[in-house]
Amino acid sequence: MGRDELLMIPGPTFMAERTLKAMSKPMISHRGEETGRMLIECIEKLKKVFRTENDVFILTASGTGAMEAAIANVVEPGDRVLCTTCGKFSERFKKIAEVFGAEVLEVASEWGDAVDPERVKEILDEHDDVKAVTVTHNETSTGVRNPVEEISRIVKDYGTLLIVDAISSMGGDHVPVDKWNIDICLAGSQKCFAIPPGFSFISVSDHAWEVINKTRRRTFYFDLPAYRESLRRKPPQTPYTISITLLYALEDALKLMFDEGLDNVIARHHHVAKIAREGVKAMGLRLFPVSEDICSATVTAVRLPDGIREKELRQKVRDYGVVISGGQDKLSGKIFRIGHMGRVTEREILATLQAIQQALLDLGVKVETDAYMQAIEKIR
Amino acid sequence: MGRDELLMIPGPTFMAERTLKAMSKPMISHRGEETGRMLIECIEKLKKVFRTENDVFILTASGTGAMEAAIANVVEPGDRVLCTTCGKFSERFKKIAEVFGAEVLEVASEWGDAVDPERVKEILDEHDDVKAVTVTHNETSTGVRNPVEEISRIVKDYGTLLIVDAISSMGGDHVPVDKWNIDICLAGSQKCFAIPPGFSFISVSDHAWEVINKTRRRTFYFDLPAYRESLRRKPPQTPYTISITLLYALEDALKLMFDEGLDNVIARHHHVAKIAREGVKAMGLRLFPVSEDICSATVTAVRLPDGIREKELRQKVRDYGVVISGGQDKLSGKIFRIGHMGRVTEREILATLQAIQQALLDLGVKVETDAYMQAIEKIR
Repeated sequence: MGRDELLMIPGPTFMAERTLKAMSKPMISHRGEETGRMLIECIEKLKKVFRTENDVFILTASGTGAMEAAIANVVEPGDRVLCTTCGKFSERFKKIAEVFGAEVLEVASEWGDAVDPERVKEILDEHDDVKAVTVTHNETSTGVRNPVEEISRIVKDYGTLLIVDAISSMGGDHVPVDKWNIDICLAGSQKCFAIPPGFSFISVSDHAWEVINKTRRRTFYFDLPAYRESLRRKPPQTPYTISITLLYALEDALKLMFDEGLDNVIARHHHVAKIAREGVKAMGLRLFPVSEDICSATVTAVRLPDGIREKELRQKVRDYGVVISGGQDKLSGKIFRIGHMGRVTEREILATLQAIQQALLDLGVKVETDAYMQAIEKIR
Repeated sequence: MGRDELLMIPGPTFMAERTLKAMSKPMISHRGEETGRMLIECIEKLKKVFRTENDVFILTASGTGAMEAAIANVVEPGDRVLCTTCGKFSERFKKIAEVFGAEVLEVASEWGDAVDPERVKEILDEHDDVKAVTVTHNETSTGVRNPVEEISRIVKDYGTLLIVDAISSMGGDHVPVDKWNIDICLAGSQKCFAIPPGFSFISVSDHAWEVINKTRRRTFYFDLPAYRESLRRKPPQTPYTISITLLYALEDALKLMFDEGLDNVIARHHHVAKIAREGVKAMGLRLFPVSEDICSATVTAVRLPDGIREKELRQKVRDYGVVISGGQDKLSGKIFRIGHMGRVTEREILATLQAIQQALLDLGVKVETDAYMQAIEKIR
């Protein structure tokens, strides 16, 4: 970790030194053989990460761009879209659907709780013309993981498209696109892939293509048929200039993930997440999600102890060399969040817990020193 | 130039070694103080490059994303938009306007010719409800520079918005946004700024804001009011995650441009472009643009000699270590293009001309050896 701060926010996350260096390679043509080779190899590997045989595309845009792509390709004004909401990012899906003229039905959960699949079923029973259901697999703002598999089983009975934002979980948690019948699934570069922001990934099922082909699409930059067509050209390419430098990073990061083994990468994320949870609980803190079985594998949200100000805590933690996040929107000042995704190992999460313990002690919170170490010993 | 190929296509262009290295800095938070500082400093410098006091924003998307932003923020279905077309990229503006439901009026010039301002005037006289006029300052596909200043003088008389794509010329050619009354102006990162693809820049005038505020905008990722609002937050930020690594590159590249002096950078581009033109003419080749006074400062398009196949020529040139481009769409197989933007100096353009001369000789074209050097001596 050296002299640099340890970046433990829920994306962007710290990168491998070799991946940082890979980005210094000279610029090349975006329509040449070498770019085509990297593009195809990265996409083939992304399909394995997504566990899908669907088409997968790389967009030069951050995750919200992929969310816009998902909506703009299937929604026309007046279409009904069911948005499940439980935090800032799932609510963003609703906002985007509204921008594109959808008539939005909402299944809203309290922030900190997960989406209730039964309520999705109720809405789908009431309305026979719902074109798509949106679900945020990993709600980064609250540290909650939603039951996509259960929701999918319901949605499939109604022939409705299932759109899943797995931006901050894909690669770090188990999101098998084909097994879960996800029609459109999204991932972000700066999360579990541990490369810079600027890329997002999107998978598209046959069912989604059928809908897309019949939709008057109000987007050009994110028009998915154009991406499919360009990929079939020789050499394979993107319709608009791909960020070559991010492709260098992605190629290297995927190599690291495959060398470690995709299942091992996911197991590591779950292990680190468990350490994060046990650690903060042993310090006497409370997790923000309403129950531990819905806790995210990549971000841990923790209630602030009484009388402690979020900014002060974060600054203290930072004084010890670790950057964590606060709450967003209505959770501002109420929680803090630890991101643990990408290259994270025991070393970084332990350094983070140590910094948090020290910061709490400095702020006068009663913490049983190193109780967190004992709690963690039990799960190692 | 070492062992790497010399990249002389019209973007992406080769980068300074120090800018490549600047991208290896560790990842940081996209909402932290350091990102806010870089964002503001880069935007202030971009304003100087654009010669504007208008708002300027950085989008994490390639140039086409900025074109979509320009259209999606001001056009509603049924709005009249006048698109001036003279090549692939000016025609793209028309396609985007159509995607967003505009009723498009077109002033089309032959590919290789520039837009005729008088014809813009005729159309504006015929229709009193044209909401915006699009012009591509530097038509990368044909090597033509359009008379934006003349077109602007006309457009201003009608109170119509002027949208200018300066993606491949801003920074390398003279595009004074305020002096020319450009309401929305676009630039791309991988062109004269000599950083990787993935960023685009957009300026917005007061008049444009008035229109944007009254427009029902069918975009979320490119919603310009959201960018303005986020920039006012503390620390300043972007609404969706900015590509930190590209911001490192932009910061460094702008330093290089300001150290050299913006006028000097532009003069260098004009000088190199002149060398490119004199060089190919001395080899007996013909420029593609119909007259030399409309030739671009950043890309030179050249007709293929009779009997020479484009791919063969490009491969031969590449055998000598230089990558140039072919023609696009209907110009495929008819022209080749030399990009000379960003960090380009006499050294690179001379190496390029040398490689082209050698390739032509190899292919049996009669070229008076080193006539190009004599022609260039006269203008040095």
